[in-house]
Amino acid sequence: MKSASPSELELFFDYLRFPSISAQPSHRGDSRACAAWLVKLLASWNLRADLHETNGAPVVVARTEPRADAGTILLYGHYDVQPIEPAELWQTPPFEPAVRDGRVHARGATDNKGQTFSHLIGLRRLLGQGPLPANLIVVLEGEEEIGSPNLGPFLHAHREELACDVALISDTSMIGPGRPALTLGLRGIACFEVAVHGPRVDLHSGMFGGAASNPAQTLSRILARLHDENGRIAITGIYDDVLPISEIERDAWRQLPWDEKWFAQTTGASTSAGETGIPILDRVWARPTAEINGLTSGHQGPGSKTIIPAVATAKLSFRLAPRQNPERVSKLVVEWFERQFDAAGMRGEISFDHGGEPFYTPPDDPFIQAAIAALSDVFSRPPALTREGLSIPVAAMLQQELQVPVVLAGLGLPDCNAHSPNESYPLAHLEIGADLFAALMERFAATRPKK
Amino acid sequence: MKSASPSELELFFDYLRFPSISAQPSHRGDSRACAAWLVKLLASWNLRADLHETNGAPVVVARTEPRADAGTILLYGHYDVQPIEPAELWQTPPFEPAVRDGRVHARGATDNKGQTFSHLIGLRRLLGQGPLPANLIVVLEGEEEIGSPNLGPFLHAHREELACDVALISDTSMIGPGRPALTLGLRGIACFEVAVHGPRVDLHSGMFGGAASNPAQTLSRILARLHDENGRIAITGIYDDVLPISEIERDAWRQLPWDEKWFAQTTGASTSAGETGIPILDRVWARPTAEINGLTSGHQGPGSKTIIPAVATAKLSFRLAPRQNPERVSKLVVEWFERQFDAAGMRGEISFDHGGEPFYTPPDDPFIQAAIAALSDVFSRPPALTREGLSIPVAAMLQQELQVPVVLAGLGLPDCNAHSPNESYPLAHLEIGADLFAALMERFAATRPKK
Repeated sequence: MKSASPSELELFFDYLRFPSISAQPSHRGDSRACAAWLVKLLASWNLRADLHETNGAPVVVARTEPRADAGTILLYGHYDVQPIEPAELWQTPPFEPAVRDGRVHARGATDNKGQTFSHLIGLRRLLGQGPLPANLIVVLEGEEEIGSPNLGPFLHAHREELACDVALISDTSMIGPGRPALTLGLRGIACFEVAVHGPRVDLHSGMFGGAASNPAQTLSRILARLHDENGRIAITGIYDDVLPISEIERDAWRQLPWDEKWFAQTTGASTSAGETGIPILDRVWARPTAEINGLTSGHQGPGSKTIIPAVATAKLSFRLAPRQNPERVSKLVVEWFERQFDAAGMRGEISFDHGGEPFYTPPDDPFIQAAIAALSDVFSRPPALTREGLSIPVAAMLQQELQVPVVLAGLGLPDCNAHSPNESYPLAHLEIGADLFAALMERFAATRPKK
Repeated sequence: MKSASPSELELFFDYLRFPSISAQPSHRGDSRACAAWLVKLLASWNLRADLHETNGAPVVVARTEPRADAGTILLYGHYDVQPIEPAELWQTPPFEPAVRDGRVHARGATDNKGQTFSHLIGLRRLLGQGPLPANLIVVLEGEEEIGSPNLGPFLHAHREELACDVALISDTSMIGPGRPALTLGLRGIACFEVAVHGPRVDLHSGMFGGAASNPAQTLSRILARLHDENGRIAITGIYDDVLPISEIERDAWRQLPWDEKWFAQTTGASTSAGETGIPILDRVWARPTAEINGLTSGHQGPGSKTIIPAVATAKLSFRLAPRQNPERVSKLVVEWFERQFDAAGMRGEISFDHGGEPFYTPPDDPFIQAAIAALSDVFSRPPALTREGLSIPVAAMLQQELQVPVVLAGLGLPDCNAHSPNESYPLAHLEIGADLFAALMERFAATRPKK
């Protein structure tokens, strides 16, 4: 197997040495230094590279000299990293890259510096061979780990300069070594807080038990009705927009190792949640769910306090399947809860906390087909077609602001410890990623967007 | 209207000056001094008066010279008082008795020094007229406000010396001025904590929502099933032992001022709690209830945290109707919850925290009939027959340990501020209470116990 050259490795290790932790304000200077280093590096490869200020960390944009007769590919990555805590569990310092067992260990090694830098190595090599087969725009942000609060406005303001045919992100995981994956879908989210009010103040349950309605009891009854006996969310209309799962994905998911047993062993919980008769990966990846995230009412300390509480509250999050819309779901949820409060004859409130769009690129999209071909070229096996049940806000942002298909082709491995101590990245993946970049450029360049 | 003599009032005010607060260890010496003062006072009336040590505050027992040919009446009272807090709301110092508008204001004025001392004034006067019509045992404890933790063992150890035909307590409230009441029943209690366990740790609701069962959802469903659609507790067998309400009490309750509207205004809560079609006083006084006292699960702070919580817990209290038994109820409750955990396929736990017996003396008990006659003599109107929904542990203790009917004839008024700042007691009630003592002694002495 080939491996990245010493100078390429040195550059990568320099990149890893920046403690560009977006969640910790004390590292703001490190983030700016990291962004400036990227601009200098990309400019040294004869790209037009700029540092764009935002209300937070800067966005780095670099591009090849535009050619009107070629398509345009946007590569997204993020130069910020997770905090290192718990610091004492790291075997070597998180910002001093250390190679052990063929892997470099450092914070950000896989998420996302390693995955991004693999493509950049591929880019540098390709630039040495002549013009690229397509125009390339590289966008590297510094706030992905805190939810990309400034990326949406940035993309919107710069949507004309950033116009492209496809966006590529490598910030997800492969199935295992040598087993590539394309992540076609992510779920959206809508979060709420619900309160049911009873007496003006906590009441003596002896003096008033049997007379005064108990808001904790009413809340329990309402939450019990949130799902029907088949585990479906009982809110009329909530499934209306849910995108059916394509046959090609359904077939692909049957071959994956994540079954009911895997989930039960991983979580320690019963897997009887969700809709009866629907396979577990469908439930987690492609179906909406309604979860109680928290309950609060009355007495919470040790022992007894015999009261009828004045108020009972619940925190709820709904995960949304592709094609569901957080605002429409929010409207249905709010109306449903208000009907429940009325039916119970109790004063209640429901407030929408925040929402996020789901994401989906269909497997028959020409760029997904191109990515399947490119991954097959490099790995000598086709990628698994997967999804994830959580949200990656940038994926939906790129899709919405730039109106292009987004390809999520991960280069990390499940045991790379993203977000955990001793994060690592296989050095061989720098080389694989460089090859993949070349293959994707070639395949994408030959692809015409679906109209 | 007659009024207590200056020396009787002086004695009463001396009694009120002891800060005999049982809940505050710094007042232990005051409680002992108060008990010693009572022993000295009662001995000065030629009673056999003794101070009995317990693990807490002493119990004062005083008795007339026993006559074998007479019945025996036990008068119970407590010399301890509630804390004074919030101290700044008192218009005059709580342990410096102050007369305003015909009432003495002091901590303990009504609860229970005033009500007890009214009987003691009656006793002193009666002793000046010759032998009492019955033997009398006075029991004054110093820990009623902290739940009488040492009274049960004391009564049990001394049950032979304390053998009597009836026990009298004046520690409840009249309906209003001139409107006497007999409290025939009190509810018992059984308290529990319930926990439902889900995943080993809080899980990401995006990664696992739809796969891992949510214990807050399961707990809500179980608690929703705790009552049926008619508001009845859905635990089979739980109503088996509930004592039906006598016709005489039912008629009496219809004439009382506490209706649905009164409860709604007093609590600010809907009165749709409890069993459908059953009058509200029945529900609060004579029917069991199951209340959620607290709920705890997952995220409780501001904002969202999109987790599937590892555990969800609830605090529950059941109020028990007369003839229900806390141990039997506990067994039914525990079995019911265990069946619910099994049916849900979730690991759950329910633990019994503490229980207390209900209390009841039937209206046809000869001593209740005698008390009705005595109250009618003194007030020129018959007493209302009431109950309370809460527990007064001493009532059940006296009934159980001494196996006698217990008569609860309150001399307080609803606006006497028991347990609140500016507690008061009408001076006229000292006189009324003295007359009532004489009337009760006479009527009780003429009563033969039901066999």
